[in-house]
Amino acid sequence: MAHNIGIIGGSGYTGVELLRLLLNRSDVNVTFISSRAHQGTRVDALFPNLRGKCDLEFADPAVVENSNCDLVFFATPNGTAMAQAPALLEKGVKVVDLSADYRLKDAATFEKWYGMTHTSQDWLDKAVYGLTEINRAAIADAQLVANPGCYPTATQLGFIPLLEQQWVDTGSLVADAKSGVTGAGRGAQVPMLLAEAGDNFKAYAAAGHRHLPEIEQGLSLVAGSDVQMTFTPHLLPLIRGIHATLYARLKDPSLPLETVQAYFEERYAKEPFVDVMPQGTHPETRSVRGSNLCRISVFKPQNRDTVVVLAVEDNLVKGAAGQAAQNMNLMLGLGETSGLGNIALLP
Amino acid sequence: MAHNIGIIGGSGYTGVELLRLLLNRSDVNVTFISSRAHQGTRVDALFPNLRGKCDLEFADPAVVENSNCDLVFFATPNGTAMAQAPALLEKGVKVVDLSADYRLKDAATFEKWYGMTHTSQDWLDKAVYGLTEINRAAIADAQLVANPGCYPTATQLGFIPLLEQQWVDTGSLVADAKSGVTGAGRGAQVPMLLAEAGDNFKAYAAAGHRHLPEIEQGLSLVAGSDVQMTFTPHLLPLIRGIHATLYARLKDPSLPLETVQAYFEERYAKEPFVDVMPQGTHPETRSVRGSNLCRISVFKPQNRDTVVVLAVEDNLVKGAAGQAAQNMNLMLGLGETSGLGNIALLP
Amino acid sequence: MAHNIGIIGGSGYTGVELLRLLLNRSDVNVTFISSRAHQGTRVDALFPNLRGKCDLEFADPAVVENSNCDLVFFATPNGTAMAQAPALLEKGVKVVDLSADYRLKDAATFEKWYGMTHTSQDWLDKAVYGLTEINRAAIADAQLVANPGCYPTATQLGFIPLLEQQWVDTGSLVADAKSGVTGAGRGAQVPMLLAEAGDNFKAYAAAGHRHLPEIEQGLSLVAGSDVQMTFTPHLLPLIRGIHATLYARLKDPSLPLETVQAYFEERYAKEPFVDVMPQGTHPETRSVRGSNLCRISVFKPQNRDTVVVLAVEDNLVKGAAGQAAQNMNLMLGLGETSGLGNIALLP
Amino acid sequence: MAHNIGIIGGSGYTGVELLRLLLNRSDVNVTFISSRAHQGTRVDALFPNLRGKCDLEFADPAVVENSNCDLVFFATPNGTAMAQAPALLEKGVKVVDLSADYRLKDAATFEKWYGMTHTSQDWLDKAVYGLTEINRAAIADAQLVANPGCYPTATQLGFIPLLEQQWVDTGSLVADAKSGVTGAGRGAQVPMLLAEAGDNFKAYAAAGHRHLPEIEQGLSLVAGSDVQMTFTPHLLPLIRGIHATLYARLKDPSLPLETVQAYFEERYAKEPFVDVMPQGTHPETRSVRGSNLCRISVFKPQNRDTVVVLAVEDNLVKGAAGQAAQNMNLMLGLGETSGLGNIALLP
Repeated sequence: MAHNIGIIGGSGYTGVELLRLLLNRSDVNVTFISSRAHQGTRVDALFPNLRGKCDLEFADPAVVENSNCDLVFFATPNGTAMAQAPALLEKGVKVVDLSADYRLKDAATFEKWYGMTHTSQDWLDKAVYGLTEINRAAIADAQLVANPGCYPTATQLGFIPLLEQQWVDTGSLVADAKSGVTGAGRGAQVPMLLAEAGDNFKAYAAAGHRHLPEIEQGLSLVAGSDVQMTFTPHLLPLIRGIHATLYARLKDPSLPLETVQAYFEERYAKEPFVDVMPQGTHPETRSVRGSNLCRISVFKPQNRDTVVVLAVEDNLVKGAAGQAAQNMNLMLGLGETSGLGNIALLP
Repeated sequence: MAHNIGIIGGSGYTGVELLRLLLNRSDVNVTFISSRAHQGTRVDALFPNLRGKCDLEFADPAVVENSNCDLVFFATPNGTAMAQAPALLEKGVKVVDLSADYRLKDAATFEKWYGMTHTSQDWLDKAVYGLTEINRAAIADAQLVANPGCYPTATQLGFIPLLEQQWVDTGSLVADAKSGVTGAGRGAQVPMLLAEAGDNFKAYAAAGHRHLPEIEQGLSLVAGSDVQMTFTPHLLPLIRGIHATLYARLKDPSLPLETVQAYFEERYAKEPFVDVMPQGTHPETRSVRGSNLCRISVFKPQNRDTVVVLAVEDNLVKGAAGQAAQNMNLMLGLGETSGLGNIALLP
Repeated sequence: MAHNIGIIGGSGYTGVELLRLLLNRSDVNVTFISSRAHQGTRVDALFPNLRGKCDLEFADPAVVENSNCDLVFFATPNGTAMAQAPALLEKGVKVVDLSADYRLKDAATFEKWYGMTHTSQDWLDKAVYGLTEINRAAIADAQLVANPGCYPTATQLGFIPLLEQQWVDTGSLVADAKSGVTGAGRGAQVPMLLAEAGDNFKAYAAAGHRHLPEIEQGLSLVAGSDVQMTFTPHLLPLIRGIHATLYARLKDPSLPLETVQAYFEERYAKEPFVDVMPQGTHPETRSVRGSNLCRISVFKPQNRDTVVVLAVEDNLVKGAAGQAAQNMNLMLGLGETSGLGNIALLP
Repeated sequence: MAHNIGIIGGSGYTGVELLRLLLNRSDVNVTFISSRAHQGTRVDALFPNLRGKCDLEFADPAVVENSNCDLVFFATPNGTAMAQAPALLEKGVKVVDLSADYRLKDAATFEKWYGMTHTSQDWLDKAVYGLTEINRAAIADAQLVANPGCYPTATQLGFIPLLEQQWVDTGSLVADAKSGVTGAGRGAQVPMLLAEAGDNFKAYAAAGHRHLPEIEQGLSLVAGSDVQMTFTPHLLPLIRGIHATLYARLKDPSLPLETVQAYFEERYAKEPFVDVMPQGTHPETRSVRGSNLCRISVFKPQNRDTVVVLAVEDNLVKGAAGQAAQNMNLMLGLGETSGLGNIALLP
């Protein structure tokens, strides 16, 4: 029998993307979706791609407690999940939180970067960080999963093999990351207008971005020691896609690229959603558009001391809703790849 | 048991799109794909979105005759199918031709617009025009289907209800059509560069476009008399999508919009891939991106004498590969919607 | 000595575009610019392209009356100019209004389409409609010029020669118009996000758009009788540019295209900002990007009874700020082309 | 009296951009333009933005020797200038070469990266590298100027102040650079189609790009010692614009950002075409679209040991034709900023 699924905050891009990934499935059944702003509106009036696939209306989020859901996604602004998820969790409902509320294990760090007090320390302690490739077993047993940020997913998947092998100087990491505009959500903001962001490119938050502590937390666990990374996010004039260009200094500059390539391939050989590209090729964001894959390439330019890793993902899929569905699959005992096999839209 | 499928001319955009739509299916099995230019290359080296989904290499098209295919798609330039399909057809293989070779029933008209002699008159006579919503039964029985052009699909689906009802002056039709750049194929042409076609918009072939006789042929059959249409195609700075804006003069200007709307809804109520939008709403190309749907709206501005129909489709799906798969489904006795249920990618 | 120029409502796209066109000139001097929302902010903090060119801060619009300006542009939302311009006009200041307030000669029509009462009937009577190619002499003598809308500029310039010659049925006009997103202004609106409007195309306001009565008013004057037009605007996924595709039925279908082409060329031969393209070529929006030109082509497809006119302009230049500067030049007795000679940015 | 100017290889994007920048000037007169492929075609037939501004036809390049030009631009593929420029130079004509032929002082390095023998060693020795901000005086005296590459311009301008001050480890440099598609020229190539490069992002040539030795050559001269840089170019889905994100490790991590910012401002205070942005702001490519400016910001994230420099330019202007015109101005004794004062097109 299909599991009942709810979505809190369904009128944003991660909401509609969850629906796209879940509505065609027979093993789950989206029975509840909420949006404070659009309460009472049919979902397919807001998202016409869902016409014929979805008869739901946006409900009041408060009603979720009576909705008999087995698992609820929070696709809400930061601060909402830590306020509303605990009541559901206490009732035994499983939760995947796509916001930042349960990602940073240290509440003080959360408060510094997100400018709000953490009000759910107990569940923060129990929450499992949902980077499946690192935490598969724990996710399967978790009641609450903190779905990783979009930049942290690509960045961590790219750096993890290098840090696992202790090959690089952990104080030298640079992540030059670029994201399409859907990363900023569906809010009406002048800088995200086509007239502003189109035919344009810029860095932003170069002085400090909230995904930095999340990435450093994850990579430090892998490395077994403190990792320091310089992180520069940029805004791409495109809709979906993240490209992380990662730089690290080899402790031993003579390490052959072939050895690095071989380990990347081995590390991810059994991962259904990580694809290590053939040596010498470059991944492109469109090759994962709409799919749950992260594709990765490794270079060692001029055979000097720096390794360059290129990692791409669709920020709304592997960077958000797809990874959330992957985690849901594990938490509900469904096949990890269930509903996530569609092929990227290219061109 | 799965049917064996072949694709001739698989290195273009309709080729990769057929693969995207077919590779995840269990009722068909793509066993053959050819490309003269890329013979010997792995398909997923050219189209990295297919990595992990396709182990084929591009073959020599000539080998198709030994490939044991039940049905072969021709995704080739005009002129190729009429040269190569007859040999397959004689052997009993079914063929869906995505080129223009078998679309125009009058060979002289074909020769005038396409500048080449028609060399396959017998099969031209037997070919069924593959606009499913008009020719469903004939397609199911056909051995050779001429898949409609991208503009003709949206334009005909938009005008058909008006002509069926004899509501409009058949000499007054205007089709102002706009297409994304994939309509021009994957050939290297300066005007299709991002640096040329990006952030730009223009009409082309305003003096006459090859899809005009195809549309007039189809609409005249529906109307039962000669239809004359003015057709202006334009190039949109986007990848996928056709928007046809259609104008026709009402014989009786007092005909209420509600009557027109009601008939559009009735006409397409059972069509799985035509969606008549609620009165007053406008379809957008992204609402069908990657899906096989055509969405249609009807207006009667200022309640004057002109009806305006808006029809959108993904030119690579309903306008090419999706409709071809829909026709294949009918020809092979599979469910018409098999493999075509995916939801459009929005945003 | 340079004339002092003011801009009310300078934080939108027509505001920054006026600055781009005026700041490098020696015959005018922008001494005042206002924005209620950005009062006190340096103009070049909002528009970094002006760094090094502009030391102004946005002022309170009320202060304009003490600003000693010879001419003031209103680049404000509809309703503002009719409230604030009269006080300036009474003092003898010249005004170019880029909003709709003084475009429609019939206040009742204004009120119907714009949903607000017209409160400046006296100045409405005195206002000159600023389509330079029609009203050059009157503009030179005017104290108040109503700058035409973006769609009306291209549409009227395209239809005028046909109507002047009484060649076409005035009840048959169709304008299928497409605009880049800057036409919607710089306000934060969800549908104008890159994530919504990018890689997408749609019609809007197909049931009725405010520019329709303005166009019909202008064309009726030219034709000497009532003109009826069907008008469908569309949103292009690009930043600047309008393309109007215009359809009209010839009273005499045998009229040769050459005759039409010849009259278009003659009609606009002395117009510095209208370029009739060679027969058979298609204008493209990028060929006027950033320039004050309108480029026009004429077709007669299949030599039937319909003439098709293609007209392109940059909606922010000839469709707004450029035409406003052209009008200012005439009103101040400067050379009409002063400051407007820059070449379009292509690619 | 105006100087006579010639352009060899005028049918590419740097050619049309030179024309846009030169045709409105009175101190220079473009009297010659060649294109082998388009010989005999009017220039404004290929580039309709020039209609009304240019009556030239593309000539045979060989004829340039009889053209009486004072200065000739080579906007040609690599290898052409070193074959054809020497004959002109011997006659006393001045030359600005926009290709790579005279950029690398070491012919062996040229041959390694460009795969062709250098056949003009004498003139290579005499050529002056045209990065105006470094070589102003030498350029004014030069007969042959090697105009810098697009990436090298932004990258060097961003790193120069750090290296001049000996503040950073010269073995640690990383340049993560992104370019719009016009950087690849106007050739018909599949990867540059809108259908391929649009809505997409990827790195390319991560294993080694020809601009690396040019940048290292320039920076080593500034640093007074060998500089090693890791360089990753990326392809942006936009038309014009380069964004270089530059990373360097401070020798003294306690160096305050304010000190760095102050030196950047001082270093470029008198440079007409370099704009150091206020601390904390990010430059965007559109803020220089169509203008000759390079805008630069400096960051020191988390106050750690890494300085991040952001530098933007229009690759066709400051990165090519604009810088070439700037060099021409110096070589001909015209004002350095003559004809280069236009304001960037934003939005």
